[in-house]
Order: sequence, then structure tokens, then C-alpha cells
Amino acid sequence: MIIESVDFFYASMPEVTLEADGSQDALLIRVTSGGLVGWGECEASPLVSIAAFVTPRSHGVCQPVSASVLGEELNGPADIARITALVERNSMDLLQAPHTFSGIEMALWDLLGQRFEEPVWKLLGYSDAYAKTPYASLLFGNTVDETMAQGRSAVAQNFRAVKFGWGPFGTGDPSVDADHLRAAREAIGPDTHLLVDAGQVWGEDVEAATARLDALEEVGAVWLEEPFHASAYAAHAALAARATSVRIAGGEGAHNVHMARNLIDYGGIGFVQIDAGRIGGLGAAKAIADYAASAGVTYVNHTFTSHLALSASLQPFAGLADHRICEYPVQPKQLATDITRTRLLPDANGEIHVPDAPGLGMSVDLEALEPYLHDVSITIDGRELYASPNRIRTAVSS
Amino acid sequence: MIIESVDFFYASMPEVTLEADGSQDALLIRVTSGGLVGWGECEASPLVSIAAFVTPRSHGVCQPVSASVLGEELNGPADIARITALVERNSMDLLQAPHTFSGIEMALWDLLGQRFEEPVWKLLGYSDAYAKTPYASLLFGNTVDETMAQGRSAVAQNFRAVKFGWGPFGTGDPSVDADHLRAAREAIGPDTHLLVDAGQVWGEDVEAATARLDALEEVGAVWLEEPFHASAYAAHAALAARATSVRIAGGEGAHNVHMARNLIDYGGIGFVQIDAGRIGGLGAAKAIADYAASAGVTYVNHTFTSHLALSASLQPFAGLADHRICEYPVQPKQLATDITRTRLLPDANGEIHVPDAPGLGMSVDLEALEPYLHDVSITIDGRELYASPNRIRTAVSS
Repeated sequence: MIIESVDFFYASMPEVTLEADGSQDALLIRVTSGGLVGWGECEASPLVSIAAFVTPRSHGVCQPVSASVLGEELNGPADIARITALVERNSMDLLQAPHTFSGIEMALWDLLGQRFEEPVWKLLGYSDAYAKTPYASLLFGNTVDETMAQGRSAVAQNFRAVKFGWGPFGTGDPSVDADHLRAAREAIGPDTHLLVDAGQVWGEDVEAATARLDALEEVGAVWLEEPFHASAYAAHAALAARATSVRIAGGEGAHNVHMARNLIDYGGIGFVQIDAGRIGGLGAAKAIADYAASAGVTYVNHTFTSHLALSASLQPFAGLADHRICEYPVQPKQLATDITRTRLLPDANGEIHVPDAPGLGMSVDLEALEPYLHDVSITIDGRELYASPNRIRTAVSS
Repeated sequence: MIIESVDFFYASMPEVTLEADGSQDALLIRVTSGGLVGWGECEASPLVSIAAFVTPRSHGVCQPVSASVLGEELNGPADIARITALVERNSMDLLQAPHTFSGIEMALWDLLGQRFEEPVWKLLGYSDAYAKTPYASLLFGNTVDETMAQGRSAVAQNFRAVKFGWGPFGTGDPSVDADHLRAAREAIGPDTHLLVDAGQVWGEDVEAATARLDALEEVGAVWLEEPFHASAYAAHAALAARATSVRIAGGEGAHNVHMARNLIDYGGIGFVQIDAGRIGGLGAAKAIADYAASAGVTYVNHTFTSHLALSASLQPFAGLADHRICEYPVQPKQLATDITRTRLLPDANGEIHVPDAPGLGMSVDLEALEPYLHDVSITIDGRELYASPNRIRTAVSS
């Protein structure tokens, strides 16, 4: 089969705020090949990612992503690996390329899954898929009371793990952070996993992070996520060495396999969190899952958007029985909910299951998306380089 | 002063080929503030970099670069550092942002230099600027004879250092590479520095690189550049440990200070090569120059485009007397030559000098650029998000 088309659907909420909430917009990718349709999603700036697909070439290793994708043969997983290597080479100097390619690569797996009537996790080499324990991703409240209310709401929804992040955490006095942490623990009770996300707030200031360690360990936090800049490995390692029980987590900022491996090798992290919509797709994510497992590091997905992205992000570690915690967008914007007809909801045990259906097993709802979609047009010297797909004529979904 | 405007000028040769020649297109940046004009240049995909400036926000840390630049105060170097931190925070999840910001940041320094009537290298903290020994950047020929002809042409132009790279090097039998290396040495004679650029050709295959070490050392190569993927630190370190005389060089792929420092700390490189048009600008580049000097690593600019980019790239290490070698684009496309009226030409000793003039000391020639310029238009839902500046009305140059 030949890759015939790659279409981009840019959707957003009517208002996109300054919240650290990645579900406010979405870039869906539709790929067609051999009469089949695959879907993927970039966790990335939609306009910039579209531009990286269609931009004129700058030179031999600064080519648009399209140059390595359109017209390529797609007959099995080896072709995805081959196309991935092409993109890495031909778009070496195009920084946005991995973000653009991530959604395309997902769609290629989705499409192959339909061709072979297998879920993607089987195509990735797993023979079984294990249930995951979703954690509710929440933002810290502006006040301790808001943080407590957030936590209570999550346990009321039967979550066994809760992550608090961003908001004011790390920006003020450490004693205020300690108050938020104790409120969070009180709200969720002693048996719920408590995770904390610092959102790179301390740059590479190890002392600032260390000032929060005692409180984190007092409340039994499982991990402290992204204390530092994504590539500040030495700071990560220094903090990990000072910690007694809490582990350092990170990896969402990695946009290739090497960066995630480096965070394991040099940063001393205990949890590697991969956004399959940024790292280059599911093949790259699976490579990191393999590496993490061999290094005694736990793999976790990073997902804050739709259930299409959620299904995709579960595939690379579906077969790792001991890597149980998964990120689960518990308060996504309506847009993210509306993207798919299929939803991955927790069962009676509070666990979620990656679909045992062809491809990613998700049905995209283009009709429901219609009110959120944007028409993008890019012209150079009056020539239209890109126009959003006509939604009526091309309203095909898998 | 307030940053009033940031304009992008996208220029390219009539035909952009698949050569590994970054001078085939250019993205010039013009910033205005307080009646002054500053110029910079991104070494990056023009369309994608423009999109990263104007894209609608996705969320609080995936904002367009413009959100952290337009309307900001610009009264001294501390403001540039502050704006840099804003971009890093507000555009954390926008992968292309550092490439876009690099040219803007350069223009801010150029503008401040005019305000204070000082060259940028003085604003960066140096009291003296030292001459640099330019090396001619050449591509390996497809045949040994072509490689030899390239080398002879460079020494005929009085270059005391020559770098060969890309082309077929590293892709075939190691004995063929050895033949090219011997031809290069024969062509340039025993006293000219010989540098070699592998262009990431071996991925992370240390054995493939090792198979070339003997020939590199036989011909007295000073460095072997980018043998591996930019973030494959362990591979760099393994090769460095096997080498006797040749040092490993790299860094052009770094898009923040941490990545370049990591290549020094974990990769064992002897030369760190920074493209100021990618790393985030001159402040980031200067931070790496400081770090390199303290770590016993030699700083080298990465520059393959215009003399505006060349002047900018020299500023961050202008004051490091012992870091003498600099990259010099010896066969740029006519576009790159036409960008500036000012040229940095080697003196009788074959050395080049960073301008001792306000700012970057370069005069941009917009009139000469006219035939190369492209009109870009980006619309979303029929609303024009970006249009190229009107060249006639805005033909201001510093």
C-alpha cells in the first residue's frame, strides 16, 4: 500500500485560556492508504505542526515532514520504522518535525492494525495487554481549600491515584507548598497514590526543589514530576540522590528516544513519562518502554487530551504488567471528550483497559468535532501551500 | 523602550536543492524599538519559524513566541535575559520556539548595541575581541578527485583550516572514506588544519565510527564532527575514549543551553559548535562559551549562511583568545552573500575580525534581497494571522 494522503484537523475550544491545560485544542491526523483510514493526534501546536508538514525545503536535511511520508510504501511495522528513520534524517534541522510526525506515526499504526485486524499493542510485539490504574491529573488549587476540594472530587470518582500539579506550587514559600501537599493527602486519604507535578518550576535550582522534599516524603508522594528543565539531567540526578522515598519523574519534554534514555541514564529518574504525541509516535515510545523496563524504571504515559491520544499512549506499555499507573485526563475540555465516540472508562475496580480491537480501537467523531474545527490556509507568493480539508466531502472516520 | 515590531523576511534561491547547504534560504528578523532597528537571522525553516511566532496559543505553556516579545521593555541586557526566560516558560511545549527566538534575540542585541553605541561582544561582557582563523566549510566530493579539487581551491584562497563533510562520507566502505581523507590531506598540505564532519551519519553506531578512526588520525584530523545523533551522548563518549589524537566535535543540534552542556558533560567532546541561530540566540551561546572555557572545551561557531549570521555567531566567543578556529561559509549561495553590504573578509594573515562597530556591525541590504523574498500569508477561519511585511514601505535597514 502507498500512503496516499495525510490530513490535519485543527480543533479548539472557543476560548483558549492560559491554564496549563493541554486539552484546549487538538491536532488530529487522518492518513489514508489502500482504502483504509488511520487516525492519530499530535500533542503540539496545531498551526506550527501543520507548517512543518508543508513548508518548502530549506536544504537536504531540513525538508518538510511530508517529503518522507507521502507516497511511501506501508505494508508492515518495518515500513513505519523505515519512514521514521527517513523523517529523522530528512528533517534533522526542522525542530518541529518530531511533534508533527508523532500524530502521523500513530495513524500509520492505527491503519496497519485495521489491515491486519490486530490491536496496535500486538503489532508492537506484546502478546497480552494489562489493565492500568489511572491517575486523575488535577491542577493545584490557588488556595489550600481548592486543592482539598479537587482531591475529594477525584476520590469520589473512584480514582486510586491522584496527581496534583502546576498552579502556585513551587513558586512561593515552601511552607505553603507543604500546606497544599498535606491538604491533598488529607483529601484523598491514606490509601490513594499521591503524585506531584512541579512543571519545571525550579529551572535547575536543586536547592529550591530540595526545600520541598521533606513535605513530599511526609505525605508519601510516589513521585515528584519535572522539577527542572527537561534537559537539566545533573539537577535531576542531584535531587534523586537527596530523596529517600519519593522518586523523580520526567520525560514528557523528550522529542526523541535519546532524550528520554538520557533522562534515565543521567537524570536518575524512577518514572519515565512519555507523550507519544511528541516523542515521535508509538515506535519511539515502545523503544523507551523496553529501555525503561531493562533499567528498572517505570514507564508512564503522558496524556492530557482525548481518548484517541489516551488509547495511543497506552499501546507502548500495554504489555508491561508491572508498569501499572497511567495518566488519565479526568477534567478535559468538552472538545477532548467529543473527539471520539469510543471512551476508555474505568471499570468497577477503577482500572482501564486498552482496546482489544483493530488498530487503536477508537472511533473518531468528525461530526461532533465540526463546531470546533478551524480552517487554515497558508500561501507563499500567492500559491496555496496548505488548505484545511473540506469537511463535508472528506468526513470519513474509522 | 518597548519592543514595537518583529518582522520576518523569508528569502530563498530560485531553486532549493537537496544539498546539505544551509545557505539556500534565509529567515531575517527585523526588530524595532525606540526608533532603532535591529537585525537577526534564524538558522531554521522560515515558514515554520514564522508560524511559531504567530500561532494561536494552545495553553499556558504552549504560547506563540510573540506573546513573550511584543510590547516588552528593552532597556539593557537584563531585559534580553528576562525575555529569554519568558519564552522558555511560555513556549515550553512549542518545539520550534527556540529556532524562532534565536533570530529575534540576535536582533535585540543588535538594537541595544546601537542604543549604547557598543559592539555586542562588549555588551556580552568581553573587553577585547580576538581575531579568528576561519575554516573553509566544504562538502566531500562524490569522487576522490572532486574532494582533492575542493581542498586545493580552499588553500588557493589562503585558508589555513579546511573542513570536509557530508557527501558520501561514512555511507560506504571505510577504505573509501580513508581515500577521501588522504586526498583531502594531500590537497591542503601538511600545515593546514583538517577537520571532518560526519553529519550524524552513524546514528549511534560506535563501531561504524571507530572503523574510520585510524584514517582520521593518520591524516591528522583535528576533529570529527557529529558522528552521531545530537543527543546520543553515550556514543560520543565511547568514541572519544577510543580516539588518540582526533577530538569529537558537536553541538549544532542543541536548541538550549542544557543540551550543549550535556554534550560536554556526558559526550566527552573537545569542541562545542554552537549555531546562535538555533540555540536561542547570543545570550545562550555566550553561556555555553563560558561553560566550555571552564571545562577545557573549545568553543566554535556553527555558521553556514550569511555574514549577518557570521557576525552574530562570532560575538559569543569573540573575547576567548585561545578559541581561535571559526566556521566560515566559503561557498555560500548568492543569496547569503547579498544579505549584507558589510562583509567579514579574511585579512592578509587569513584571519577574520568581528566588527568593532555598534551592535552586530552589519548593514542589511533589503534592496538586494528583493528578488529572493517570498510573500507568506497565514489565515485561520478567514482572518489573516500573518502577512509578510510590505517591502517598499518598510525598507528600513540599520
